[in-house]
Amino acid sequence: MAPAEPNALPFRPKGETPHFAEEKEGWKGYVEWEEFPEKKKQAQEVLKRYDFPEPPEFQLNPLPTTNPVLTGERWKQYHSALGLSHIFHHSWETVLQEKSPDMTHILQFPYNGEAPGDRLIKTELTNNKDHFVRNHGGIPDIDPAKWTLDIGGLVKNPRKLTLAQLQDERTFPRQSNIVTLQCSGTRRIEQIHEYPGDGDELINAPWGEGAISTARWTGVSLKRVIKYCGGLVDDKGADNIEFYGADTYFKKGGVHNYVVSVPWRKVKAHEVLLAWDMNGEQLPRIHGFPVRVVVFGYIGARSVKWLYKIRAIHRPSMAPVQRKEYLYYAPQIGKQNARYSNGFSIQDMPVSSAIITPKKMDQIVHEGRVRLAGWAYSGGGHWPVRVEVSGDGGSIWYEVPAENMSTKYFYAWRTWWVDLPVDAEGWLEMCVRCWDNAMNTQPTFVRSAWNWDLHVTSSAHRIKIYSINKSRPNTAARLKQLEENNTPIVPITRPIHFDLETDDEYAKAMESRAWRDPLE
Amino acid sequence: MAPAEPNALPFRPKGETPHFAEEKEGWKGYVEWEEFPEKKKQAQEVLKRYDFPEPPEFQLNPLPTTNPVLTGERWKQYHSALGLSHIFHHSWETVLQEKSPDMTHILQFPYNGEAPGDRLIKTELTNNKDHFVRNHGGIPDIDPAKWTLDIGGLVKNPRKLTLAQLQDERTFPRQSNIVTLQCSGTRRIEQIHEYPGDGDELINAPWGEGAISTARWTGVSLKRVIKYCGGLVDDKGADNIEFYGADTYFKKGGVHNYVVSVPWRKVKAHEVLLAWDMNGEQLPRIHGFPVRVVVFGYIGARSVKWLYKIRAIHRPSMAPVQRKEYLYYAPQIGKQNARYSNGFSIQDMPVSSAIITPKKMDQIVHEGRVRLAGWAYSGGGHWPVRVEVSGDGGSIWYEVPAENMSTKYFYAWRTWWVDLPVDAEGWLEMCVRCWDNAMNTQPTFVRSAWNWDLHVTSSAHRIKIYSINKSRPNTAARLKQLEENNTPIVPITRPIHFDLETDDEYAKAMESRAWRDPLE
Repeated sequence: MAPAEPNALPFRPKGETPHFAEEKEGWKGYVEWEEFPEKKKQAQEVLKRYDFPEPPEFQLNPLPTTNPVLTGERWKQYHSALGLSHIFHHSWETVLQEKSPDMTHILQFPYNGEAPGDRLIKTELTNNKDHFVRNHGGIPDIDPAKWTLDIGGLVKNPRKLTLAQLQDERTFPRQSNIVTLQCSGTRRIEQIHEYPGDGDELINAPWGEGAISTARWTGVSLKRVIKYCGGLVDDKGADNIEFYGADTYFKKGGVHNYVVSVPWRKVKAHEVLLAWDMNGEQLPRIHGFPVRVVVFGYIGARSVKWLYKIRAIHRPSMAPVQRKEYLYYAPQIGKQNARYSNGFSIQDMPVSSAIITPKKMDQIVHEGRVRLAGWAYSGGGHWPVRVEVSGDGGSIWYEVPAENMSTKYFYAWRTWWVDLPVDAEGWLEMCVRCWDNAMNTQPTFVRSAWNWDLHVTSSAHRIKIYSINKSRPNTAARLKQLEENNTPIVPITRPIHFDLETDDEYAKAMESRAWRDPLE
Repeated sequence: MAPAEPNALPFRPKGETPHFAEEKEGWKGYVEWEEFPEKKKQAQEVLKRYDFPEPPEFQLNPLPTTNPVLTGERWKQYHSALGLSHIFHHSWETVLQEKSPDMTHILQFPYNGEAPGDRLIKTELTNNKDHFVRNHGGIPDIDPAKWTLDIGGLVKNPRKLTLAQLQDERTFPRQSNIVTLQCSGTRRIEQIHEYPGDGDELINAPWGEGAISTARWTGVSLKRVIKYCGGLVDDKGADNIEFYGADTYFKKGGVHNYVVSVPWRKVKAHEVLLAWDMNGEQLPRIHGFPVRVVVFGYIGARSVKWLYKIRAIHRPSMAPVQRKEYLYYAPQIGKQNARYSNGFSIQDMPVSSAIITPKKMDQIVHEGRVRLAGWAYSGGGHWPVRVEVSGDGGSIWYEVPAENMSTKYFYAWRTWWVDLPVDAEGWLEMCVRCWDNAMNTQPTFVRSAWNWDLHVTSSAHRIKIYSINKSRPNTAARLKQLEENNTPIVPITRPIHFDLETDDEYAKAMESRAWRDPLE
């Protein structure tokens, strides 16, 4: 399945269109923008000639039930306008080659996708084909022999490294860590359903519980690379490290490479890896081949893919992804008053969790216990210590037994399962919360932490399930009756065609309670 | 627009189909079932030969955005199977003739529809064209000259009255009352959205806030008619009055006339009217012409339309609408254990209310006050005394000033409006609750009173609105900026194309707070 060609561009001719193309041999899909302010300006002028389509209304209207859920028409058209339409075709081919065929494609281009939940938590390390993907631009295809990494800015000895040099263990000893990456959009769909926010489908892709995955990443600690460059320049206030990704990123009518930064102290703690190996396999192209950044405990947005340049800088990056995206706003901030400076930048990720099975709205026949399973995670230097579940919307909590939780790592999630005692029948609200080693736990309700850009849905995860307890005699009798009529009980919304009791049973029951009204 | 012909019936031929038709001259669309058990049996046998379609899944799936919302395919096919397909054509023609063209047709056949909310509460008496309609079968077309009312059962002197006799003021003095009729399905959509229940689209039509209306009804008190028949027979336990409507009603594979009952004490209190006049106009055909019952303070289902027979009986009616419908179940009752005898029969209606304007999800620019308007009602002999609204989900309540509430009647709703102080911005949950003269008030949440058949959604009505307070300087500035860019602020989900602040403003703001991370 190829991505649809974007609808015809509403072209407004005004002068000649300059040529924008990859300028580096072996770096397909990479256009350098940051080095060339004049080229950026030209591209901006070209983009101004078009009326790009508004995003589809997927928040105030119901979300499409298609897969891909959203297609990213605007981004296809941005690329087409600049003569770069091959990028979205190549990106989608890469998705089909490298990811499981049953991914939920949240956004076709730039590609965003998550694996079906039950497979996501089957193993503590996610299969590479099932690892979530959150891209902001097309997928570059870089020849590893041609790849270089340019390290400069406020370092004493700027250097350019080839892949062979970076992988030379005599210079850079290997570091390997099990690290969970999480998009701050995880579980965003809950915020959207509670209250719509900014409707940009790239920024606010409608993720479920699967924008989180775990892998063993192998490469070198960035600290060693910076040390190799003589370390930071003294007295220039170097305090942040900026990463450049080869993908092309569009924002507010302008065009950029994907650029973000992390504080130096994060690098210093050996919590920033330059990785080329994912779970013992070569890093897939869709995940940043040949080399990507992996920042432990931070929002996934800092773990830049297709890394080609590093700069030591004073203060956080002023690039749009760092400055204008991934901002966490107070609840009264919205379209009417949002600025970049009144949101705070999301870096460390908080404690969170999700129930993966059962799925919401499942109708479950059981004998007094319902099995729940899911994931729990805490970033920012913490790890999940305790997971609790509730079958009554959060009044009574049951602790998940320690033996039902996966291995404890400094930088990774834990999967868990529990058989929850459930006596009650009908619709129940099941929920989960995690406590981390600093005793942080999750906000109670989605509303407790709703924010305009719909980031970090870390409230106690709640799902509605319908409980059918066949250890109850009346229920057992009805199930038997349904079976005799060759009628399944699910979906419960499907009406029963036979009478719910006989006339005799009814008369007897009513007589026993003196019928409907008082007798006197 | 004619109702679609039902999809071809999956006919399973087994013997000859008996002929079912109107048997009474001048009574189009009326088939007598209750008098002829053999005919009922034959019809049941005919119905057994078909596999009627399952109802559309409108609860676990999103509700269609069409109008009619649901079409009632099964009921069309039931009628077709019995040779009565002209009934659904005639019914729909009557809808188009007698109701406002912009009704929300909740179910096309049997017809269920409500008027747009703003018009619903514009006047304290609802315009006949806008009065909600909740039918259980096709609309009969009865020649008033041929109409008779048969009164029997446990009355001393059974009688048959013509319309002229019933309207003879020398025998029966007129009674006229302002009475609100309310379907127990009012606001059902909230229960469906919270938790799906039984999915029969006739029984559980997905009503909004408009399944309630008010009219001045004129006719005679049923008590006088029963007295005219010599009153109730002594010593036979006569304690309920049963009404027969000329519409045809299908239930669990059987066919019936529409039959329900009310207790005698309700009749005795002159709270049951036989009406032929609605707001000074002849009763419309869709509302029961020539004569209908109006039961004050009860669920609308007891106010039988196209009345043709009355019986005094011992104990409530055993007919299916009375016995098997309009049951109020406890929250753990559902498909797995529901019986007719473990729900209780809905008669008196509780206190309830609704916000009609603004509508849910409205995004409102204001200067510190938002106008809310709606209705409030209490049945069962009570009336609304106080209405309160909240702009914060129910923490702080403001009383609606007495002068903003419509006239107080014993048996009718009150419309109301209030200018609610709103300082906060962003998504707010507005809610309303009513207190009646017995100090009853409403359950807090939909969940507090959810029940399997989704009746009586009387919890505090809650709507989400987005507040944009232009008395705040930052908001005023953004609105000005949007205006200059010729961009409306609504829908708020549509992204802003220009930058949210200048580089200088950003740098200044960030410098003032020592940038993102601590300096040491």
